Amino acid sequence: MKVEFEHIFESQQQDIIDKLSRYETANSCKISDNTWSKSSGGGGRTFVIEEGAFFDKAAVNFSSIVGNKLPDSATGLVEKKEASSFKAMGVSVITHPTNPYIPTSHMNIRMFLILNKKKELVDWWVGGGYDLTPYFIYEEDCIKWHKDAKSCLDAFDARYYEDFAKNCDEYFFLPHRNEKRGIGGIFFDNLNDLSIDESLKMLQNVSNTYIKSFLSIINTRKDTKFTQKDKDFQEYRRGRYVEFNLILDRGTKFGLQSGGRIESILASLPSKASWVYKKDAFIDKNEAKLLKGLKKKYRG
Amino acid sequence: MKVEFEHIFESQQQDIIDKLSRYETANSCKISDNTWSKSSGGGGRTFVIEEGAFFDKAAVNFSSIVGNKLPDSATGLVEKKEASSFKAMGVSVITHPTNPYIPTSHMNIRMFLILNKKKELVDWWVGGGYDLTPYFIYEEDCIKWHKDAKSCLDAFDARYYEDFAKNCDEYFFLPHRNEKRGIGGIFFDNLNDLSIDESLKMLQNVSNTYIKSFLSIINTRKDTKFTQKDKDFQEYRRGRYVEFNLILDRGTKFGLQSGGRIESILASLPSKASWVYKKDAFIDKNEAKLLKGLKKKYRG
Repeated sequence: MKVEFEHIFESQQQDIIDKLSRYETANSCKISDNTWSKSSGGGGRTFVIEEGAFFDKAAVNFSSIVGNKLPDSATGLVEKKEASSFKAMGVSVITHPTNPYIPTSHMNIRMFLILNKKKELVDWWVGGGYDLTPYFIYEEDCIKWHKDAKSCLDAFDARYYEDFAKNCDEYFFLPHRNEKRGIGGIFFDNLNDLSIDESLKMLQNVSNTYIKSFLSIINTRKDTKFTQKDKDFQEYRRGRYVEFNLILDRGTKFGLQSGGRIESILASLPSKASWVYKKDAFIDKNEAKLLKGLKKKYRG
Repeated sequence: MKVEFEHIFESQQQDIIDKLSRYETANSCKISDNTWSKSSGGGGRTFVIEEGAFFDKAAVNFSSIVGNKLPDSATGLVEKKEASSFKAMGVSVITHPTNPYIPTSHMNIRMFLILNKKKELVDWWVGGGYDLTPYFIYEEDCIKWHKDAKSCLDAFDARYYEDFAKNCDEYFFLPHRNEKRGIGGIFFDNLNDLSIDESLKMLQNVSNTYIKSFLSIINTRKDTKFTQKDKDFQEYRRGRYVEFNLILDRGTKFGLQSGGRIESILASLPSKASWVYKKDAFIDKNEAKLLKGLKKKYRG
């Protein structure tokens, strides 16, 4: 059964790799496709595009790790006497497109399995979601992004979208900046309301909806001309992405604490980021506009 | 008395600003010199050079903050019934020179005062230190760096240097990379062995020795020619500096938790950093050399 679960995640990964790779036609682009395994039993496949014409960086990773002690960052574990080991698997996608008019996007689907000494399943839950981090905001894109997410989740439970959109706003938030990371989307964790089959179906739908919605934004914005100043602004705002991932992201913390493969975990970081103390007028103006846009609620 | 303490820190700050500014002759360089205060009572002066010909970034900050509850990250507080508020002041310096053959350097001196309801001093301690993060290692520079630190501390206690150099190696370490941040130096915290006057004298000597040692390295390496590849390697390794500052640095955590001025706290970050998944031969070769050099102990 656990092997079947893994196949589901791996096939979602492959689908996203195929769909994103089509945009990358540059000969100079670096593609890495590494299958790896840990002596402790875990393994995965890390797929990364770098220095592309279309993507500064895009990472589509699958990993499945095993362990005896659940890391602190994996919250929500109901301590069960019979719990003896865990298995955590997931797909995680981060895209940093070259064109600053296309947002950075992130998607993750994951499943936790708690096993007893006989390696039988004694508990499980799923988690995941996706969110969008634009540099220049187009309201219509944000509204559609959320609308698609709502349709996807309504098929499972009419309350999910509102709850998960709220979770997403709360989770992808930088308290030290008092800023949302982006315009949100959906985020859920420790979910086991549905049957395990329905949960997996939901994860697949979340992944499929994410890639469909993101490709739609790509296709709408990919021909927008940009200047070096736009690019510098994107690089500066990518500093915030780094701050979130390194200070706040629970997935990153879980990965680092559970002895994951460091290169794969940090493949989510942008290729370049910058920090500016004294901002010029261009950054000032566009940041003010962006922050105003991030404060709005785009609900589907 | 507290005002006198502040003057000591402010004058160390001014001295370092003067000494570093001399190297920056570019007209295009951005200099910020901001005096700020918090409505809660704290304040400081943040001095930052950016986009210079000599420094990509250099920040020399003084801050003095007050509070009622010591943040979790300020370890070592002996809970005293009469403790009612605290005052924390310090100078913190980070330099990111443009030339990759000059290391990044960091120095910090700080003092904690615990006050009772009458604002009388009931406890105090000092902390600080400095460390060096080279991109290309010159053994003779590293040995001199440590030798100077030893001479500085030997004047106060013959055991300090060994202890503080060990602390420094342990503290400036990235467990997720299994890498030291640099070749170390000295680091101490929660120190109140000496009298308060002697402690302040030691902090001044630490600051003076740091700037003297660092200027000596600057003067030795500043005319070393570098290529774009050297510069890219520096930017890539600066990613590690960002990882340390955001994931591990207690000063950053303290600043974020105690409601410090975010722009000042994160002025320590390099202007640009990069993350590379698939490394080219140049990075591979130079990183292997660097990591080998970081493993060595340079003791004064």
